[in-house]
Amino acid sequence: MSLEGNALIAQSGGPTVVINASLIGAVDAAREHSEIHEIFGAVHGMDGILHENLIALLSEDPALLQGIRYTPSAALGTSRLKPKPADLERALEVFKAHNIRYFFYIGGNDSQLSCHLVSELALQSDWEMKIIGIPKTIDNDLPITDNCPGFASAARLAGSATQFVAKDAEAFGEAEVIEIMGRHAGWVTGATQVGRLEDRDAPHLVYLPEVPVDPNEFVEDCKIAYDKYGYLVVAVSEGFAFAEADRVKSSEKLDEFGHARLSGVAEALAGVVEEAIGKRCRHDRLGNLHRCFSYAASAVDLDEAYAVGQNAVARACAGETNQMVTITRLADDPFQFRCDATPLLSVANLERCVPREWINERGNGVTAEFIQYAKPLMRGTGECMPEVLPHYPRLQQFPVGAKLPPYVRAK
Amino acid sequence: MSLEGNALIAQSGGPTVVINASLIGAVDAAREHSEIHEIFGAVHGMDGILHENLIALLSEDPALLQGIRYTPSAALGTSRLKPKPADLERALEVFKAHNIRYFFYIGGNDSQLSCHLVSELALQSDWEMKIIGIPKTIDNDLPITDNCPGFASAARLAGSATQFVAKDAEAFGEAEVIEIMGRHAGWVTGATQVGRLEDRDAPHLVYLPEVPVDPNEFVEDCKIAYDKYGYLVVAVSEGFAFAEADRVKSSEKLDEFGHARLSGVAEALAGVVEEAIGKRCRHDRLGNLHRCFSYAASAVDLDEAYAVGQNAVARACAGETNQMVTITRLADDPFQFRCDATPLLSVANLERCVPREWINERGNGVTAEFIQYAKPLMRGTGECMPEVLPHYPRLQQFPVGAKLPPYVRAK
Repeated sequence: MSLEGNALIAQSGGPTVVINASLIGAVDAAREHSEIHEIFGAVHGMDGILHENLIALLSEDPALLQGIRYTPSAALGTSRLKPKPADLERALEVFKAHNIRYFFYIGGNDSQLSCHLVSELALQSDWEMKIIGIPKTIDNDLPITDNCPGFASAARLAGSATQFVAKDAEAFGEAEVIEIMGRHAGWVTGATQVGRLEDRDAPHLVYLPEVPVDPNEFVEDCKIAYDKYGYLVVAVSEGFAFAEADRVKSSEKLDEFGHARLSGVAEALAGVVEEAIGKRCRHDRLGNLHRCFSYAASAVDLDEAYAVGQNAVARACAGETNQMVTITRLADDPFQFRCDATPLLSVANLERCVPREWINERGNGVTAEFIQYAKPLMRGTGECMPEVLPHYPRLQQFPVGAKLPPYVRAK
Repeated sequence: MSLEGNALIAQSGGPTVVINASLIGAVDAAREHSEIHEIFGAVHGMDGILHENLIALLSEDPALLQGIRYTPSAALGTSRLKPKPADLERALEVFKAHNIRYFFYIGGNDSQLSCHLVSELALQSDWEMKIIGIPKTIDNDLPITDNCPGFASAARLAGSATQFVAKDAEAFGEAEVIEIMGRHAGWVTGATQVGRLEDRDAPHLVYLPEVPVDPNEFVEDCKIAYDKYGYLVVAVSEGFAFAEADRVKSSEKLDEFGHARLSGVAEALAGVVEEAIGKRCRHDRLGNLHRCFSYAASAVDLDEAYAVGQNAVARACAGETNQMVTITRLADDPFQFRCDATPLLSVANLERCVPREWINERGNGVTAEFIQYAKPLMRGTGECMPEVLPHYPRLQQFPVGAKLPPYVRAK
């Protein structure tokens, strides 16, 4: 006999370009299941649950909901609140008060742990409910799933921006360091190299937080690349670290999950590069753009995010609980996938970093296996977007030839 | 009788998303004039002229040139070299050696001055040539012309990014400071407010370098806006200054034109905002993305840039010299324009800032006149791009209503 009652959905942690597609996928699916009477949204994630700040999603204008599907960032509002035991008990009280029998939590590692803890507590107190986690993180660091919704769009933003600033660096014949989000996992940073179709294309050097970097090798590699290509683009994760040195930190502030807020790695490294090559080195930090820059949305990502939202509801209504939906890759080109599931505890609070063998030996680039993994995910949306990353022609440059003696500028 | 000989074209200063459209506009036009035998490109601007690093543009594959038209940043390479008198003499020698009778220089204020000086020198030494400046600057600070090619695309990037990070700030119910290029002129920063269709839309506060800001008013306005909208987005020019304080500088380095390299205003202000509202304030700096992020290209900008390139050649071949092409606005919606011209000296090294009356009295926003000026320029390209800036729906948020006593979280 099916479990009758209301459903609750919440968004947690950093938003992404596609997290609302998961929300609407779940709402659309919930509409099709008569055992789900109402589907409530928690305003600002766990915070909205604790303070009963809930809204009735089936009352929303359906056309507006379809617009929300393509709206970046979290339309319900999000929160980084990490629930303490008393909070979890309160959450369960709220579930009981509103006859919540289905709970869907869209989030990353930390959120899936909260989801698991709520699930355990419901079991202990004999409140029958079905709890399914919906994966979301630009960092792509959840284990088991092939990839995480949110990642591919962040990768397309970082990869596209790297191509763009590279044209700027090439125009000046100078250097650029671009800083990509990722404290411990370098998936997004590595994906910028999908745009490097020829040797002289950027990014020439790519540093993931998985591999500490020898400062002497860094300087040497910058010189070699600059001399070879006449410009230099270096992509680094915010978690960049020189070997045997502390991670570069511009701020000791911690976020609400206790993570250090890192910033300013590109600015620091630009100085090192300038000294190495004797040319100006610009720096850019893509920061929060990774989470919201929807011009760079991935079509695969939008599809995946909607599908995991739908699949979570289907699983809960089929009686599954304490699981997170996962993506299983079926084909690379064009990318095809299936939704599976894994126990929450198998992903909660775990981090999947880029395997060492997908990073080259020198630690300054990714391998063909990495490109093969990432590229199919990064397909653009619509006809006026590049199929994967933008790639522009260069002039062939037929030299005219000098007619005068060489010129030496007066100092 | 028409002047027979070769033409030379060069790109100067900071690149833009559309500067190559001007290059190709000039090349396409030069092809149609038999008095122009060859059209050479200077590699890396003035640097390429001085060192005779010239390439033959008519030898390039025409299909590739059409691709270059839509390629961001300067395909010939650019340079910030500010020529000294000896350099100008050398330039003239190079012109004579290569029978350059037509010179087209795509650049901003500084470059138009160089262009004028070369023109004067040619006159003095009886080398007949026609010199036309082609306007280019994201800063939009050239006088006389309605707007500068490069501006509208930078404005679309800044305006779009502001809408995107605003969704992120709104999702958290927190604050964001976004830093926009512009040392002395706030055109690009002001244009971010084109995206504010409703009061609660971002950016709520906009600070242009034209108006020094009272720190107490800044804090007060942040509090008022945050309390009213539940989130806060502040857009600031990199040249932001508090009244009676030095401009915020994170670096005393100067660029090759002697301008200070400013950075880090958003980071500094985010601290002030956090203290004012007692909530986390994120910060982003769009930096070099303004010059190259072609996903945000303006269709008007691409058209204008191509047209001023073509028009420069037409004017030179009609015997005009020592002029810069200008844009005259004919209609707002859809935007229509005509190319005119003005003496180089009327624009050389001058800066047109945003008129005080286009900034509100409090100095924290732009007026309807500013919006009416900027909005028609910011039309997107292609059907999958928003017509002007992106604007996303919000959930209507029908409250479910609390059933439990209010919750107070344990510290």
